[in-house]
Amino acid sequence: MRIAVDAMGGDKGPRATVAGAARAVIEDPQLDIQLFGPAGLLDDEISRLPRPLAAAASHLHLCDAPDIIPADMRASQALRRGHASSMARMLDCVAAGEADVGVSSGNTGALMALSRRALGMVPGVPRPAISTAIPTRGDGRCYLLDLGANVDVSAERLVDFALMGDIMARHVDGLAAPRIALLNVGVESTKGSLAVQQADAALRQVAGIDYLGFIEGDGVFAGQADVVVCDGFVGNVLLKASEGLAKMLVGRVQATFEAHWGSRLVGMLARPALRRLKSELDPVRYNGASLLGLAGIVIKSHGSCDAQGFYYALKRASQEVSRDLPSRLEAELDHRRPSSGPLSGGSVDMDDGQQEL
Amino acid sequence: MRIAVDAMGGDKGPRATVAGAARAVIEDPQLDIQLFGPAGLLDDEISRLPRPLAAAASHLHLCDAPDIIPADMRASQALRRGHASSMARMLDCVAAGEADVGVSSGNTGALMALSRRALGMVPGVPRPAISTAIPTRGDGRCYLLDLGANVDVSAERLVDFALMGDIMARHVDGLAAPRIALLNVGVESTKGSLAVQQADAALRQVAGIDYLGFIEGDGVFAGQADVVVCDGFVGNVLLKASEGLAKMLVGRVQATFEAHWGSRLVGMLARPALRRLKSELDPVRYNGASLLGLAGIVIKSHGSCDAQGFYYALKRASQEVSRDLPSRLEAELDHRRPSSGPLSGGSVDMDDGQQEL
Repeated sequence: MRIAVDAMGGDKGPRATVAGAARAVIEDPQLDIQLFGPAGLLDDEISRLPRPLAAAASHLHLCDAPDIIPADMRASQALRRGHASSMARMLDCVAAGEADVGVSSGNTGALMALSRRALGMVPGVPRPAISTAIPTRGDGRCYLLDLGANVDVSAERLVDFALMGDIMARHVDGLAAPRIALLNVGVESTKGSLAVQQADAALRQVAGIDYLGFIEGDGVFAGQADVVVCDGFVGNVLLKASEGLAKMLVGRVQATFEAHWGSRLVGMLARPALRRLKSELDPVRYNGASLLGLAGIVIKSHGSCDAQGFYYALKRASQEVSRDLPSRLEAELDHRRPSSGPLSGGSVDMDDGQQEL
Repeated sequence: MRIAVDAMGGDKGPRATVAGAARAVIEDPQLDIQLFGPAGLLDDEISRLPRPLAAAASHLHLCDAPDIIPADMRASQALRRGHASSMARMLDCVAAGEADVGVSSGNTGALMALSRRALGMVPGVPRPAISTAIPTRGDGRCYLLDLGANVDVSAERLVDFALMGDIMARHVDGLAAPRIALLNVGVESTKGSLAVQQADAALRQVAGIDYLGFIEGDGVFAGQADVVVCDGFVGNVLLKASEGLAKMLVGRVQATFEAHWGSRLVGMLARPALRRLKSELDPVRYNGASLLGLAGIVIKSHGSCDAQGFYYALKRASQEVSRDLPSRLEAELDHRRPSSGPLSGGSVDMDDGQQEL
């Protein structure tokens, strides 16, 4: 399997991406990874890999790309001026069939716009939707989409998100009948915006999906559904607020134990448990968001992730390749849409207005 | 101070409201509380108050109301058929000037619609906005609004939410210059929906407020702002998802310690710290949401709260009364609106479509 990596994206840059790539290779020697970025800089990073990871070097291939897409560059600018960037060249490599999947921690809006141009879309899908798994009660997980690619969406797009989530959960995660729910401010049919109400009515007409109806915010983490659908504004706020809250709570857990435990012995005993807890709550565990609806496979890694997080994104990438997600979407999406609700052509094309994950 | 209480709202019914009211009276003997509900039932609850709370009985006045607004009743139905309900009679009492404030744990949509009919609105505000304080890092707190009263909002309404939040934080909490932020999917001016972008532009024109610009989901809990403004769909999802996540994380904290700590001694030592932690993370700590923009004062208590939570809602109620929030809103709101952006008259009036808190 060949993975193309934009080595220059994310807050931690090539230090995280190169080490993450090396770790993925060590674990799976079938992997070949093409690293895109300024060749000299990447060469340095590879030569600085510590001993156990250095063995991966023969599977890490340098692909020179002089430019970088800054985190605050608009998607429209990236489309115009980003041709020599590590992100664009990584995507060109996927588009040319020289890699099976592309991975980047960089600017989400730019990645979406450049991916769409380089790879095209599954027929009938106007823009990618972004989806990631979030942890739920009882060690479960749940796909949430959209996470910011589409801030103003029609009922038809919400239905598409539900179908794409269903296809992903079945084929990538092997669930026989994923439970699909639509996020709303109440569970009664009269609640919510017009788009949400129309999408609910349409989803009830779709055969072959386990559609639960509306779900409220507290139901997401309760593990009531395997796929939760919402517009990109709501999904982005939910995901980021959850990251912020988790960080705050972990801080309070630590402070509680530090403030109230006089005994040094108890503090020492608590430390390993707290460490485990912190890693369990770490959102990076599920790092690797899918850009669903592209005619190829692109994984967006969290911008703040470290080598370990980037490694998870690479694992996610190889999972999606082995299940050939875009072909599944293409084969199943169109004929599963409710016949009464054809895709509206009126999707707003304003990449610059989108999210930053 | 006289507080009118809908004693029949909420999952725990009069058991929670009567005991919460008694506790509030014990703490502040200046309080007189009118309890609305079936008189016989409430009388029973009062007679069953345990010893320390029983002393409050002389300040608890029974006001018979035979009917109850069910949690799933539509607002439109409540308007038509709810006249003899505990909620409607409680609001009539406030409207007649026989109480300074009304408090209910009941059906939020019904409470909003009945409050608006009974008390009217501050001039220029078409519908109430719901706001509550949420805990932030470093023991801070932040007002979030709207929480579900308005699911599709214009830029003008978002500006109003910001101004109302500012007035509340200044007068009720005594902040000299509350930091106001608009929730969005990114901090750049090109991000987000049209309404959010227009509201941002308008808020930059308002003199006398400390407007920070956009804030992302993770900034809310980081304590970056004192007032965070968003539409009711987003606010409702954020609040409920946070409740769900907090519950899940507290469960994991407990499970972590139970799973990994072999020593019984350590488990026993950890218990008090875990108990403290649980109460610190309890969302009920800030129970008591304001229905901003009403010409009177009504506090919505969380539907699942117990006596302790209801007591907090009553405390919130007396705080708002002592600062006379509606008069402040009436005096300040109109002339602080940006002159270029008059309130659009096009607010959607569909109470049934709103949230359940």
